[in-house]
Formats: sequence, structure tokens, C-alpha cells
Amino acid sequence: MLSAEDLELRQTVRRFGEQRLRPSIAEWFETGQVPVRELAADFGKLGLLGMHLNGYGCGGSTATAYGLVCQELEAVDSGLRSLVSVQGSLAMFAIHRWGSEEQRTTWLPAMAAGEAIGCFGLTEPDFGSNPGGMRTTAKRDGSDWILNGTKMWITNGSVADVAIVWARSQDEGVVGFVVPAGTPGFTATDMTRKLSLRASVTSELHLDDVRLPADAMLPEARGLKGPLSCLSEARFGIVFGSVGAARDCLETTLDYVGTREVFDKPLAAYQLTQAKIADMAVELGKAQLLALHLGRLKDDGRIKPEQVSFGKLNNVREAIKIARQCRTLLGANGITLEYPVIRHANNLESVLTYEGTSEVHQMLIGEALTGVSAFR
Amino acid sequence: MLSAEDLELRQTVRRFGEQRLRPSIAEWFETGQVPVRELAADFGKLGLLGMHLNGYGCGGSTATAYGLVCQELEAVDSGLRSLVSVQGSLAMFAIHRWGSEEQRTTWLPAMAAGEAIGCFGLTEPDFGSNPGGMRTTAKRDGSDWILNGTKMWITNGSVADVAIVWARSQDEGVVGFVVPAGTPGFTATDMTRKLSLRASVTSELHLDDVRLPADAMLPEARGLKGPLSCLSEARFGIVFGSVGAARDCLETTLDYVGTREVFDKPLAAYQLTQAKIADMAVELGKAQLLALHLGRLKDDGRIKPEQVSFGKLNNVREAIKIARQCRTLLGANGITLEYPVIRHANNLESVLTYEGTSEVHQMLIGEALTGVSAFR
Amino acid sequence: MLSAEDLELRQTVRRFGEQRLRPSIAEWFETGQVPVRELAADFGKLGLLGMHLNGYGCGGSTATAYGLVCQELEAVDSGLRSLVSVQGSLAMFAIHRWGSEEQRTTWLPAMAAGEAIGCFGLTEPDFGSNPGGMRTTAKRDGSDWILNGTKMWITNGSVADVAIVWARSQDEGVVGFVVPAGTPGFTATDMTRKLSLRASVTSELHLDDVRLPADAMLPEARGLKGPLSCLSEARFGIVFGSVGAARDCLETTLDYVGTREVFDKPLAAYQLTQAKIADMAVELGKAQLLALHLGRLKDDGRIKPEQVSFGKLNNVREAIKIARQCRTLLGANGITLEYPVIRHANNLESVLTYEGTSEVHQMLIGEALTGVSAFR
Amino acid sequence: MLSAEDLELRQTVRRFGEQRLRPSIAEWFETGQVPVRELAADFGKLGLLGMHLNGYGCGGSTATAYGLVCQELEAVDSGLRSLVSVQGSLAMFAIHRWGSEEQRTTWLPAMAAGEAIGCFGLTEPDFGSNPGGMRTTAKRDGSDWILNGTKMWITNGSVADVAIVWARSQDEGVVGFVVPAGTPGFTATDMTRKLSLRASVTSELHLDDVRLPADAMLPEARGLKGPLSCLSEARFGIVFGSVGAARDCLETTLDYVGTREVFDKPLAAYQLTQAKIADMAVELGKAQLLALHLGRLKDDGRIKPEQVSFGKLNNVREAIKIARQCRTLLGANGITLEYPVIRHANNLESVLTYEGTSEVHQMLIGEALTGVSAFR
Repeated sequence: MLSAEDLELRQTVRRFGEQRLRPSIAEWFETGQVPVRELAADFGKLGLLGMHLNGYGCGGSTATAYGLVCQELEAVDSGLRSLVSVQGSLAMFAIHRWGSEEQRTTWLPAMAAGEAIGCFGLTEPDFGSNPGGMRTTAKRDGSDWILNGTKMWITNGSVADVAIVWARSQDEGVVGFVVPAGTPGFTATDMTRKLSLRASVTSELHLDDVRLPADAMLPEARGLKGPLSCLSEARFGIVFGSVGAARDCLETTLDYVGTREVFDKPLAAYQLTQAKIADMAVELGKAQLLALHLGRLKDDGRIKPEQVSFGKLNNVREAIKIARQCRTLLGANGITLEYPVIRHANNLESVLTYEGTSEVHQMLIGEALTGVSAFR
Repeated sequence: MLSAEDLELRQTVRRFGEQRLRPSIAEWFETGQVPVRELAADFGKLGLLGMHLNGYGCGGSTATAYGLVCQELEAVDSGLRSLVSVQGSLAMFAIHRWGSEEQRTTWLPAMAAGEAIGCFGLTEPDFGSNPGGMRTTAKRDGSDWILNGTKMWITNGSVADVAIVWARSQDEGVVGFVVPAGTPGFTATDMTRKLSLRASVTSELHLDDVRLPADAMLPEARGLKGPLSCLSEARFGIVFGSVGAARDCLETTLDYVGTREVFDKPLAAYQLTQAKIADMAVELGKAQLLALHLGRLKDDGRIKPEQVSFGKLNNVREAIKIARQCRTLLGANGITLEYPVIRHANNLESVLTYEGTSEVHQMLIGEALTGVSAFR
Repeated sequence: MLSAEDLELRQTVRRFGEQRLRPSIAEWFETGQVPVRELAADFGKLGLLGMHLNGYGCGGSTATAYGLVCQELEAVDSGLRSLVSVQGSLAMFAIHRWGSEEQRTTWLPAMAAGEAIGCFGLTEPDFGSNPGGMRTTAKRDGSDWILNGTKMWITNGSVADVAIVWARSQDEGVVGFVVPAGTPGFTATDMTRKLSLRASVTSELHLDDVRLPADAMLPEARGLKGPLSCLSEARFGIVFGSVGAARDCLETTLDYVGTREVFDKPLAAYQLTQAKIADMAVELGKAQLLALHLGRLKDDGRIKPEQVSFGKLNNVREAIKIARQCRTLLGANGITLEYPVIRHANNLESVLTYEGTSEVHQMLIGEALTGVSAFR
Repeated sequence: MLSAEDLELRQTVRRFGEQRLRPSIAEWFETGQVPVRELAADFGKLGLLGMHLNGYGCGGSTATAYGLVCQELEAVDSGLRSLVSVQGSLAMFAIHRWGSEEQRTTWLPAMAAGEAIGCFGLTEPDFGSNPGGMRTTAKRDGSDWILNGTKMWITNGSVADVAIVWARSQDEGVVGFVVPAGTPGFTATDMTRKLSLRASVTSELHLDDVRLPADAMLPEARGLKGPLSCLSEARFGIVFGSVGAARDCLETTLDYVGTREVFDKPLAAYQLTQAKIADMAVELGKAQLLALHLGRLKDDGRIKPEQVSFGKLNNVREAIKIARQCRTLLGANGITLEYPVIRHANNLESVLTYEGTSEVHQMLIGEALTGVSAFR
């Protein structure tokens, strides 16, 4: 079902993942230390950052090709796919879609090369599922803007060179800003004590009277449509990425049960094992079909937000079920970082929640099907 | 994703179903009386019987087109789709694939026209999931064959003009026979007290020293490969058909919850309703994608038996879940034949079991994935 | 965990069920004809009708003993338990709890004896889960009352000698009436085309200017508290009854898998069978523990409505899952009335919905735990 | 349902847990460093170690009381309950049940006081679910024994003062030994990289020509019955303990959803939240009833191994589902160690697997119910 070009790209990224990423990933996860800057440079060299955007040093690939890349990266770790998602689908996409020509030329080539790292400041401490409630403010002071507020759960916040920050302005509703690291009043602190996405940097952003010139604003974005369009991009990547994590769990488990002997025959020879394996293969196969179908729809310019919700809801939910089921097949070995399974399972807890919880997506789909909103 | 031709065919069969079948189906189900012969003639006129076979009056359509027809028929009732499956995928396919030229010319044109009805005698009272255990025997007597045994759960057994009967012979293993109705010693009695597929005739076949000439044997079939090839055909139709039943349940339910008011707002406006609807839509969508994917693989000649198992396992299992969940959304109304939902749910109990239970398909898939059989 | 007395009662009712009810139940279900009046007389002789009420010819048993009786009856068929529930927990309880002394002496002894059959008219066509929305009206005309409206899904409506009918009055809110069969303007028509509780009479009640004297009103009941107290009684019986249906399914299935051979060993010897059996036994065991625990709480006068919801929600939901799972283990045989399993499964569809759907009980429990109502 | 004495004990342990354990537990888990020796001393002072054993400084409590203690400890962390289980139900129980009088007087008083720590060496690298396959050998050398082999997943192995080690002898089958720490050839190394039970020490034991005197053998234990009797004791504690973990998750979540606002009302006010809460409360309640029921059976001396399996299978399986569901209700906050939920979820992965996987217990229950073993 894939073009020769797509297959080759997938092979390249898979090989890169096996050779460069997998040998270190358990350690990065365990220590919570990940060489983001080096990785960004590597991903940039491979052309993976903002690869589905056109111009400005970006690859101009299909959405499907981008999805396949997400899949291979998340087959190693959801944190690595998150890095690429935040860079390409959130920060770069925001600039590309809603920015000025100057913002694009300033930032996109460096970001595509992995030389500049971006982050995306939308979520606030009390507003995960309701971005419309945001409290961060942008006030005019002459032609300048003054930003105040706090953003939370921001991937790469503390290592970013540039932050896209969304704030509420009095006259223009929600607006976005390009905030270079180092701007006075703008600080980031890392969140620790995570048991998920430990191979990914998660930060809080603090905006304390951050003064920005007028041209720091994303000129084309007004209202929630701006940030929501970015979320839809990121969700698309998750639709594919989560399949990668699940696939890695299942492949690991197939290897394991084929060699692990219990009562003188391999674990694979038991009915209870095979029923689990078969059910997981069915769910994985459907998730893959769904991802590719949505990829094709996106490439045709026909995808709707509720269809992305459909994919995000299903694929992450099934991926985490697969990871947990695989964990049981690995027995006690399933609880260690010697095998990728429990790491994937824990990562997918974040993926299940971010970019819209299952419930948010159920309500989005429900509204599309019934014509009635049940959010409140 | 469908060609204009496929869309038109689907529309034709859907219209036929709505106009000719749906108005009577609840009554057929309730009384357990269904005009099989008339229906067969109608289906024959529409070109639906053995439509995916080539020559001999058959339509020569794609497998995908045939699947879409199964879907529309099962959207009305699984019993109607069963009629078409047994005729086209089991009886006609057996003759087409394994029969002699004479058998083909004798039977296929009449069967394609719906003038002759076929049935397929494989399952025995004690051998549902293990056809290899069959006890029906075929013994040589000169050049004739003498058949003895009992077949059970045979759709259209008592109304058939011709039965394909599988039996065990001493020297040639499992072989198949074309047995015209009325052959001395061959009788069929109907099974009643069913709560499923009541709009379908289910019979027991009794073979008591049934004497057949040598040329009644299907010359090309030896061993279980013969009947199993037919089962694989029938399963393929179920992959599509079950999606039709589930779709009809969901559409009925969407209508219902949109108009049924509870506490001054439609049932559709409640979170609990929308979560159910969204989850069902997701499963239905995936089942449809899977059916079409398998249709394409079959049309390309690349489909493997375990892939058909994959589709049968998933699509029936999800269809019955959808039917049951829809039943709950219809409340007390869900238990009556005024709505199609509980009828579909009950029908799907049979569909879940026949042509391989979920467990049989799990073991087939498990074996394909692990290389080890866990059947025994 | 049960007293000797309770064990003996259970044994008596179980034996009665096996000897008097089970031999006919499949036929009653199939034909939709059930000898309600004879059965009521039999149940009356056994002392099962209103057995947990005190005085007026009632047995004065514990709630636990009553629950055990419900369990044994529903082990045969939910429709038979429904008969007893409607008589004792709804109609008789309403008179006992909310009626005048005269109403009690007039009706309860005859109802306890099974000579008079009662029904309970609360549910209306558009108000299943929201009795507060009822449209049936009671208007004063001098000292008389005039009732108008329609009631639906009324067990035993057409065979009842007396109906408890709830209606909305202008000045006193929801009030209840004792309406003898034959009162002019009061008619009942049977609902057919059911695929569930077919061994139970379900009717619509029509009240067309039904004139009743002042003393037909239940004097102590005002507002929804009246009918809701009856529902809570009926739900209690379901908590136990549903366990009976599930137990009968599991016992039937254990017998079946122990004798049915597949590939030369009993179905019981397969891992997939045993996993299903074990999981069902676990759920059945917990449901039984829960029923007995609630019985004890009720006997101590400490049970709260949300605890009854807890039991109804769980026990019916698990019972229907068990019935469906057992159905799969019976293979094709599972779809016929030769075995009780699919009959139980279909009956439990009604039981799942009536006396509060799963969602209603989830919201009742949720409100009790969170202090916030989420009904609307 | 509990005696005043039980309630007081529970209160004492709960208070101890809140004051002494909970403030540090997230850090112990995060760092993987837990002060086992100090904790053992504290538990000893509270009388919790081997509390259900009689004499030799042990408390002689009921099994139910012991279970309640396990519940309160696991409400803080499964690792803490594991410490108590291994000490009391495995190491002390083994000596108490199968040891010589001298072994009892030597070890039990010190172990009850928490001054001596025990571990239990049964599981081997390749024999998790099949202890009968063990490869560790005990060979006679004169009257001495020489032990060789490796044990894995041994809680407290590296901090223990004494190890109970099971080995295969040529003449007497599986036998057990009391091995003091420091015996030449006996070493323990810690297993790291765990994502579960990080607040618990897990070790590998290496036995390299460990010479033991004849009286080091447990004189009463022969065959697998010895170690299996200990496992059954430990499983009993898990039946209760897992309920504690689930309870802590649900209580945490009820607090969270009651105060966390989304769209201007608390998360608790949404239908989707309440459905989850209600379902979890139902499962938690049943698990608690089941634990108490098994406690009573054990106190009456009537409990069977398959009943313990029933409790272990159910309570851990439901506990982990509750923990995962609670995680979703905490949103992104659910992935951090600031809340106990993901820690419990990850711990329960081990608890699900150790002392018999779900599949092992399904097969034990299945065998008890069907009379046929499906293990192989």
C-alpha cells in the first residue's frame, strides 16, 4: 500500500532508530536525561523536522510520509516522536501557517535543520482540555505587547530557542507570539518526577511582564482557530506514531514468547498466548489501516478534524492496550527497562492524555455525528 | 474509495433491500417463515447469486463488489445474506472450483438465476469446529457411491434443489458430491426453536444409503482443502456482511437518540450517549476499512486464509458489540422487533459461531504469527 | 453463609422450579403464552407473593429469604421472577406501604394467595428513565378523581385484577391509585413482537376518563417518593434474581463443555474454555456475595438506595455478560431454545433496562459519591 | 462487618502509613532507595511481621486482621506490603510451618521484631510460572548439603539476614533450606531498571557450592507442597493488599475531580466522570467483599487454594484497572509522582504477575471447576 519512496524513507528512519536511538533510549528514559540538541541536529540532517511543510528549507513531503516517520520514531520511544511533533507540527507549523514572511524566513530554515529548537506554549495549569479558558494575557503597551502568565506541560520548553506562546488579548481574542529564548521575563523550569515520557523534556514556562515588539505576533492567527489548527497537526502525527509504539511492543513480545519456554514448550504454543497475540495483531492491523487511510485523506486535502479525532482516539487507546497486554506476556521481565514494553506503556499514558483526552475526542466525534455538543 | 460502478451496485441493492425486504423482514423473523424460493428468484434477477464467479451465467464481478452486496443484504438481515452466501460462496463456488464441466453447466446457470437452490453439507452434529472429524461416509459400490451420515445446521437444506455433501471415503479421504434433492435416502428436516437467523431455513440432512453415480463426485476435490476453500469464500462475505448489520444498528440508533427526549433534551445530547456513539462509529469505521482492504487483496489474488480469519474474527465480534450497545440506547424499545437492532444482535450470535468461532480464528491467526499450532 | 431455614426455602423453590416450571418454560417463551393465573396460584401456595411483607396474609420473611426466592425463579426464567417482583415488590408493596387499612385488607390477602394479580402503572411511552415527566393526569371532580393517560411496558397489565396507577395531580403532585380491572375507561392491550421476557405478559394501559372514588387513592404517597420506593424494592429482587439467571447459564455450560468433545478431548480441557469459565465463576461469585451483603443490609434496615443501585448495576451487567459468554461456549447449540442460555441472555436485555438502566444507576452512584448530580 | 479490634488495628496502621510512610514514599520510589531495615524495625514494633502466626513472638492474629494490615500498607505502596508479605507469609511462614523447633526459636522472634529480615528463594530465571522446573540443586556431601543455582526476582534478597532457599535433591525431591546471609558461596545482587516496585529491593541470589549443615534443611517440607503452601499464604495477603492500592487511587481521584474545574464546573459533575467513578466504586466494593469473605473462610480453616486464586485473580486485575482509569481522570497530572496513582498502577504490574499470573490462576480455577487440567 506504500510507494517505493515511502518504503525507502521508512527503512531509512527505522535503521536510524535501531542504530542511533534504540541503544541509548532505556538509559535516557531511566535517567530522564536526553540529548535533545544533538537529536534535533540528527533529525534535521535526515530532513524530518517540518518535513511535510513546503519551502523555507522544509521537505514538502506528503502527510503520509510524515506519518510513517512518526511511526518509526515512536517505535523507539514516544518522547522522540514528541520532539519531532512539537518541532514540526506545532512550532514550525504555527509559524508556517500563521506567521509573517519575516518570521518564516527567520525561523523555519534553522528549525528544519534542527539548529533552532521550538516549543509550543498553549496548555496552562488549570486548562488542559479547555484552551479557551486560558489566563495568560497579552496587553498592548504602545505598539509593544506585554505578556504575563504560566504555561505547563511544555515539551522542550527549557531547551527551546523559540517559543510559540498563545495569550488572550483584550481586543483581538487569542493571539500567538514568537518568543525567542532569553527574552527578559521569560523563563522555563523543568518538570520532573514523571513516570512517562522521561526521554523528553517537559517544562513550565513563566511569562513575567515579557515585552515583545509588535512584529512578534503571528499576524494571521485570531481566536482559538490558531492553536487548534496546530493541535490537529500534532494529533495526525500521533495517529501514526502510536501504531509504531504498539508495533514495537508486539514484535518484542512475539520474539519473547517464541523463545521463552514454560513446561517444555514455548509460551507461544499456548492457547492463551495465541488468543492475546491474535487479538493484538487484529487491533494493530486496524490501527495501521486507519492511519494510512487518514494519511491519504490528508494528502487529498479532505480530512476533517473529527476524522483526526477518530484516529487519535482509537490508535492511542488501542496502542496502550497492546502495550499492557504485551507486558503481561513478558511476565516479570515485563517490568524492567531491559525490554521496551513497559516504557512504551508508560509513555502512552501521556500520549493518551495530551492533544485531547479520549473523552474530548469522543465528544468531538459525538458532536459531528449527532449535531449536538455534549462538552458541558 | 469505491468505483462509480460499485457505488451504483450498492445503491441498487440497498434500494431493493429497503423496498422489497425490509418491510417484511420482522415478520419473516417472527414467524420463522421466509419465502426462500421467491427471494432466490429476485436475487437471481439482480445478478447477486454467484456474482463473483466467472462464466456459466455468473456475473464475474470483483470480490469487493460481491462484498458490498453482502453488506447491503445483511444490513437488512443476516439470514438474507446467509442465503446468498450459501448459494454463491458455498454451493456454487464448490461446483465452480471443484466440479466437472458437466456439473458446472448443469447447475450453475440455474443457480445463478435463482431457479435452483443449493445447500452445503459439511457440518455434523458433533463436529462443528473440526470438520476433519466427520463421520459421514462414502463407500464405493461398483462405480457408484453409497453415502451415509447426518449433517446439521445446513442453511436451506430442506428447500434446496441440490446439496453439496462432503463425506469421508476410505481411499480418497474427504470427497464432495453433488446430490440432487429427491435422491432416494436423502431427506432434510428443519430445525426450529432458533432465536437467531429465524428468517433463514436451517435443516438437518439425513443420508441413508444414498446411492450416487460416479459422476456425482466433485472430481477435483480431495481432502479437507476442498470444503475449507469454500469456507474461506463464505467467511469473506461475512467480513462485509457483518458491517452491514452493524451499520443498520448504528443508523437506527442515531435516528432514535436524535428524536427521543429525556429530561427535555434529546438522548443524543448526553455525554454517555455520545461516548457510546463515538466508540461504535470508530469500530464500525475500522471494520469497513478492513473489509475494503481485504476486498482489494482478494481482487489482487493476494489474500491469505489467515487474513480472512482476521476479518471474520474482528468484524463479527465488533458487529455484535455494536448491536448490543445500540440495544441499550434504544431502552425498552430495543427488545422489540419494531426496531431491527435486537434482531441483528440475535442473528449475529449465529454469525459469530458459524464459519469458524472467534476461538478458531484466533488460533488460525496465532498459528500464522507464531508458527506453532495451538488447536489441540 | 445461609441459615438452615433459608437453605430449605431455597431448596423447595429450586425443586418447584425444576419440576413445575422448567419443563414448560421454553415453550412458554417460544409461543409467548404463559399461564400467569395458574402460576400465581402456585406461587401463592408456596407463600412467595409479597413474602417479605408483614401481616395481611404475607409471609413476613427476611429480605434475604425473598432474594433467594427471586434467584431460584430467575434461574428458570426472568419472566417468572418478574411476575413475583411485580406482584410482591411493586403492587403489594405499594398498597402495604402507602395504602389505607381498607386497601390493605381488601387486596393483600388475595394477592398473597395469588388469587388476585396486580400490576404497576408507572412508566409512560416517552418517560422511561424520567418518571418525573409523566403525563398521566388525575383531576378532581367533586370528591372523585378522573384519570387520563397511557402507561407502557406494564408487566401483567392485561391479566391483572388490580392496577396501581401513578398520575400527576394539580395540587398534590404525583399520587397513586388502586384501580380495579373492569373500571370503565381502563383498558389494557398486550405488547407483542418482543424478543425478551416472552414468558411474561407485557401490556399497555389506557386510561380514558377513568372515574375513581376518593378512597381509591393511596393516602400516604405524595410525590415521586411513592413510586421510587417501590422501584427500590423491585431492584432489590433483581439483584438476587439476575444471579440466578447467570448461575443457570454457567451450570448449563459446565455440563456442556464437560461432555462435548472437540478434537478428541472435551471442550472443558481447552485453555480458552477454562479462562472463560474461570472468569465467569469469578463474576458470578462476586455477584452472589454482593447480593447476600445487600440482603443483610436490608434486613438490618441500613440499606441505601445507592447501594441497591450498586447491586442492580453490577449484577445484571455481569449476568448478561455471563449469558453471552456461555452462549459462545455452546457453539451453534447456543442459539436454540433447547438450552436455556440464549433465552436468559435475551431476557436479561429487558432486566438490564427496566428498573433503571445502567446509566441511571451509574449516575445515582456517582451522585452519592461526588455530591453532584450529572443526570441532565 | 469488622470487629472493634479490627477497626482499631486498621486505624493504627492507616495512621502509621499516613504519618511515617506516605511522606517519603514517592521519593523512595523515584530513587529506588528504601530504608528496609528501619521499616522492618518499625513494622516489628507495630507487631505486623508474621502477625497471623502463633507463638515465637508472633501476634497470633486472625487472617482477616492480617489482611487488613496488608490493605493499609498497600494503600501506601505495594512495595511496602511486599516487604511484610515476604517476611511474614513467605519466610516466617516457611520456618513456622515446615521448620524444626530449633529453626523456629532461632529465627522467628527476631524476624517478628523486625531485627532479622528474611527472603524467599523459589523463582528461577527460566521458571516463573513453573516452580517444578527448578534447576537449583541440593546434593548430599556426608551429612552436609551443597547448594548450587540461581534465584531471581527475590524481594529483599540483598538485605536479608536469612534466606529460605528451595532446591531439588536427588532422593527427596524439592526441599527447603534456611540459609543465613554470609554463608560462603551465597551472594545477592540487586536488580535495577525496574519501573515497578521501585520502593522494594529485588535481588538475584547466587548459590555457588554453598555448604550447609544437615539441620539447615526444613525437616517437614518435601516436594512442591512446601513452597506452594507459602505462595498460598502470600497470595492471601495480596487479595487484601491490592484492594488498598485501588482504594488509594479512587480516593485520590475523588478528591481531584471534586476540585479540578473544567469549563466552569468540577470534573466530578460530568457524566463521563461519574460513570467511571461509579464503575470503579462497584469493582472496589466487590473486591473488598471478596477479600473479607476469604478472610472469614481462612479464619474458619475452610479456605481452598482455588478460592485464594479466585481472590488473587480478581482483586489484582480489578485493582490495576482502577489505577489505570484513575490515571486518566487525573489528566496530565496523572503521570507524575506528585500523585500516587501512576505509582500504584506501575506497582500493580508486578503484583499482577508475581505469585501466579492471571493465566495461572484462571487455569487453577478452571481445573477446580471442570476437573481437567489445561496447564500444558
